[in-house]
Amino acid sequence: MNKEKASRLIDAAMGRSLCDLVIRNAEVVDVCNKNSFKADVYVKDGMIAGFDGDRKAKEEIDAKGKFLLPGLIDAHCHIESSHLSPSEFSDAVIPCGTTTVIADPHEICNVTGLDGMKYMLDASEDIPLSVFLMFPSCVPATPFEHAGAILNKDEIEKFIDNPRVLGLGEMMNYPGVASCDETVMDKLECAYKRGKNIDGHAPSIKGPALDGYRAAGITTDHECETPEELTDKVRKGMYVMLREGTACKNVLQLLPGVTEGNSSRILFCTDDRQPQSIVEEGHVNYGISLAIQHGLNPYTAVSMATLNAAICYGLKDRGIIAPGYRADFILTSTLNEGIKPDEVFILGKKVAEKGKILAKAKHTEPLNVSGKMDVKDFSATKLSFRPGSDHVRIIDIIPGGVVTGNGEGWIKRDENGEWIHEDDKDILKLAVVERHHGTGNVGVGLIRGYGMKHGAVATSIAHDSHNIIVIGDNDSDMVAAVRKLIETGGGITMFKDGKELGTHVLEIAGLMTDQPLEEVTDCLRKMHQTADKELKVNSKIDPFMTLCFMALPVIPSLKLTDCGLFDVDAFSFTETAIKE
Amino acid sequence: MNKEKASRLIDAAMGRSLCDLVIRNAEVVDVCNKNSFKADVYVKDGMIAGFDGDRKAKEEIDAKGKFLLPGLIDAHCHIESSHLSPSEFSDAVIPCGTTTVIADPHEICNVTGLDGMKYMLDASEDIPLSVFLMFPSCVPATPFEHAGAILNKDEIEKFIDNPRVLGLGEMMNYPGVASCDETVMDKLECAYKRGKNIDGHAPSIKGPALDGYRAAGITTDHECETPEELTDKVRKGMYVMLREGTACKNVLQLLPGVTEGNSSRILFCTDDRQPQSIVEEGHVNYGISLAIQHGLNPYTAVSMATLNAAICYGLKDRGIIAPGYRADFILTSTLNEGIKPDEVFILGKKVAEKGKILAKAKHTEPLNVSGKMDVKDFSATKLSFRPGSDHVRIIDIIPGGVVTGNGEGWIKRDENGEWIHEDDKDILKLAVVERHHGTGNVGVGLIRGYGMKHGAVATSIAHDSHNIIVIGDNDSDMVAAVRKLIETGGGITMFKDGKELGTHVLEIAGLMTDQPLEEVTDCLRKMHQTADKELKVNSKIDPFMTLCFMALPVIPSLKLTDCGLFDVDAFSFTETAIKE
Repeated sequence: MNKEKASRLIDAAMGRSLCDLVIRNAEVVDVCNKNSFKADVYVKDGMIAGFDGDRKAKEEIDAKGKFLLPGLIDAHCHIESSHLSPSEFSDAVIPCGTTTVIADPHEICNVTGLDGMKYMLDASEDIPLSVFLMFPSCVPATPFEHAGAILNKDEIEKFIDNPRVLGLGEMMNYPGVASCDETVMDKLECAYKRGKNIDGHAPSIKGPALDGYRAAGITTDHECETPEELTDKVRKGMYVMLREGTACKNVLQLLPGVTEGNSSRILFCTDDRQPQSIVEEGHVNYGISLAIQHGLNPYTAVSMATLNAAICYGLKDRGIIAPGYRADFILTSTLNEGIKPDEVFILGKKVAEKGKILAKAKHTEPLNVSGKMDVKDFSATKLSFRPGSDHVRIIDIIPGGVVTGNGEGWIKRDENGEWIHEDDKDILKLAVVERHHGTGNVGVGLIRGYGMKHGAVATSIAHDSHNIIVIGDNDSDMVAAVRKLIETGGGITMFKDGKELGTHVLEIAGLMTDQPLEEVTDCLRKMHQTADKELKVNSKIDPFMTLCFMALPVIPSLKLTDCGLFDVDAFSFTETAIKE
Repeated sequence: MNKEKASRLIDAAMGRSLCDLVIRNAEVVDVCNKNSFKADVYVKDGMIAGFDGDRKAKEEIDAKGKFLLPGLIDAHCHIESSHLSPSEFSDAVIPCGTTTVIADPHEICNVTGLDGMKYMLDASEDIPLSVFLMFPSCVPATPFEHAGAILNKDEIEKFIDNPRVLGLGEMMNYPGVASCDETVMDKLECAYKRGKNIDGHAPSIKGPALDGYRAAGITTDHECETPEELTDKVRKGMYVMLREGTACKNVLQLLPGVTEGNSSRILFCTDDRQPQSIVEEGHVNYGISLAIQHGLNPYTAVSMATLNAAICYGLKDRGIIAPGYRADFILTSTLNEGIKPDEVFILGKKVAEKGKILAKAKHTEPLNVSGKMDVKDFSATKLSFRPGSDHVRIIDIIPGGVVTGNGEGWIKRDENGEWIHEDDKDILKLAVVERHHGTGNVGVGLIRGYGMKHGAVATSIAHDSHNIIVIGDNDSDMVAAVRKLIETGGGITMFKDGKELGTHVLEIAGLMTDQPLEEVTDCLRKMHQTADKELKVNSKIDPFMTLCFMALPVIPSLKLTDCGLFDVDAFSFTETAIKE
């Protein structure tokens, strides 16, 4: 706001000048009193000018029978999970009613470091969706793998004064906070100095451990799993988020803990929503709708998703339909059954109608964030696997989550000690190919439960370092799949008998694409069908998402990184061979 | 917070180091969930370290049977109204449970300009009470009088970046905002630029007029008088304060408008509390107690006076009893009957017990803010009053408020046209003596309803410009009273037949004193008795407070400034003489 803009708005509010727009007869959701009232809502210069009165406006819209509510704020998300670039993400989520997101570009920064941060800021600068960023606090996520960058205090200092950077992203390194690790404390201090937020990530942390975490100044948590955990974290002064992602869904688990008394401390977020979930269910409106359908007062629900998030992140210009606030709003025929926007307005301009965006957001060239594929000397030799024993450790896939079992089994080896695939056993080779620094690192191990009979699947989405992960029964298809991703700059691909069965190109950092949501989901749908029909992947798991989490060494129990097999419970590397 | 301090706090929270203090068995008020829970509360380095667990502490206090709640925040007050300097004010209000105030030094700045601002900052720097300031937005309050300073954009810019200056003080110039007055917009922009708050002052403003006011970015209002007005202002996105001052009392008026749904948008404040009210009733705890006694959920009430105020003003380190927040708290045996603190702690140190402060706050010399008495050529001649007609306008005192009547009457004049006091008529002479710039200005008029038979009363508290105001039946006592105030540097004094009946010295800007609350109230009590017995002042009015508001040209209907008689309804100067 500046005085010229304020003066123009005051003039419009006082009826001395023409407003740009009036929405007549709307049932306005009042998130401050938590009720609604019928009014004509006037807009000038993208801001709400006032209600009713004798003003004039250039354009009129009749909203009789419709609720008018503030644009929804997703309090924590990773845009990368949508596979979409910021402009395509904007086009995808605005029709769902999301007008502001607080995004943690943790994934792209793990690949491209500060170039990723710069790209996410640039690419979200001039698009209808308001994108605020939290600077990723944990890049790399662990020291047990090679990520594309190391972001510490000096890197944070370069970006944290940007007004669109609201603080430090989810501090997943709980042990580092609890032990006052010097590097972690240096990062936290970047936020302390500026009074900026620090997002938390504290699954199941409680008691003195939670005291210590909160004493570090952590502002929020989005990892609660029970109503008791929610109540405890709210009590300890944290804002708690009800998360409804694609894999992690907590809204219904946590809802019994939400009361009229504590609702002002609770927000909604999506964290990670896959493109298919956005198309089929919606975005942050989906979690809100679920909560309303299961008994949460709709006005309370809307407040949580608008006013509360604005307060938590210090966004003083939004979250309320009232004079002097941004004219970001939704018109919807339903409220008591959930929020399905008929029309979405940003800065007083209609930007979506009946689930469709009206104009494409401005595209930004993905400079310096093309899928970086610095893979050294890759060939079948790198996939050679001689475990040194027939009795081996095997990563056991557990359907429905990202936790794996630390399994055992017996395998066959050839005369050179090389592992031999057996058709009647559901054991496949898994490899993680380092792609950031040309180290030539390839970690190889065994995995059970994927179901695939013959072929290979590879992806450059492999949390959190996003090396190339590939699964297969034969080295030839595995090599072809990896080579395909090196060639495309990343994505997801499938090979069988040397033939490419399908590729979803993610040319931005190997994580995102500038294709629109519809094309992305079309492509993924076809690839899912192929994975099912041609590769016979276990129908109880998502063939691609499952792979994405097999290299994440912070989730139990057995995982594979580019540095080797990792026993998460023991928090140390281990061997495939079980030596008696 | 910095990393060293955070690390020490984390160490304490994790039980690795000794805490300074533990309050055992407290019933902790949880302002976030709005309930309470039993816990041992650990403190380290002035911050809350955690609850329960196996930690050790140097000092233990058993709080069995007591509620532990966050220190109270007075969201809007004028310290000057207490007659106390910041250090004495700190000693006076802390025993009431107030640990933070948002103060608008509007009065002292009207007298001493930026020196007043500097003094208020300096004098409140190292005292137990946390004092945050709002830079006064309306100095002078009107162009119809001479104040000690003119504070515009350039002056605001000098102070507004101070971290203890939270924004712009109450914007009383509603017409200036509504008309986008250039000077007013320049002031507002100082806050816009920094994202700082702008306090409001919008009695009875509603509809498009309120839209315009809120469109200017005004954050709060403390002038609501009806539940409907509260609901309306909350709806329009403002935080609303329940005010319980000495003269203006709105808590019970507004309480019916407070709901569980809107309570997060509502705060408590005192605005103006006289020293007697603090002694007899308390401070912000009095308004909170009233609300609780009249049915407000005590947890909601406490949240409003702590968490909500902290959120509204961006004070992220306080307002909640939880790890990482300041250990400013109250122990009280009662909650459901209101808040009367047994003990008060600030930064984990006990600072008050049973209504008494335990150690005097550090005194700061009132440099450059001594009672400025630049009065030119003052003598009885200046009080000469020749109205030019026997038929005159008279300021009619209306007991119980600060509004006056625009009265008429018939007087006697001597051969020179000089007004003659008549013993059987309750009409007295009123004069306002300019004291800031040596203009020699003296405004003279007539006033009815004060009751005094013989003598003079003068004070240098005369809102908002704080010139010397004097009332009397004879010039000789009036001159003596004014001279006494010039000599003492300000205060309140009474004379009769040339004899000084009592003087309350306010040596700081003529508004405040470095004497403690007890001495101030003792002195005022004796002076009230004298005013009653010796001067026979109307028992239905406060002899001193009434005088303080007779020079305030924004409150209807007839007032007197150093520039002359002012018809507030017509918003222009007028004459005492009614010429037929």
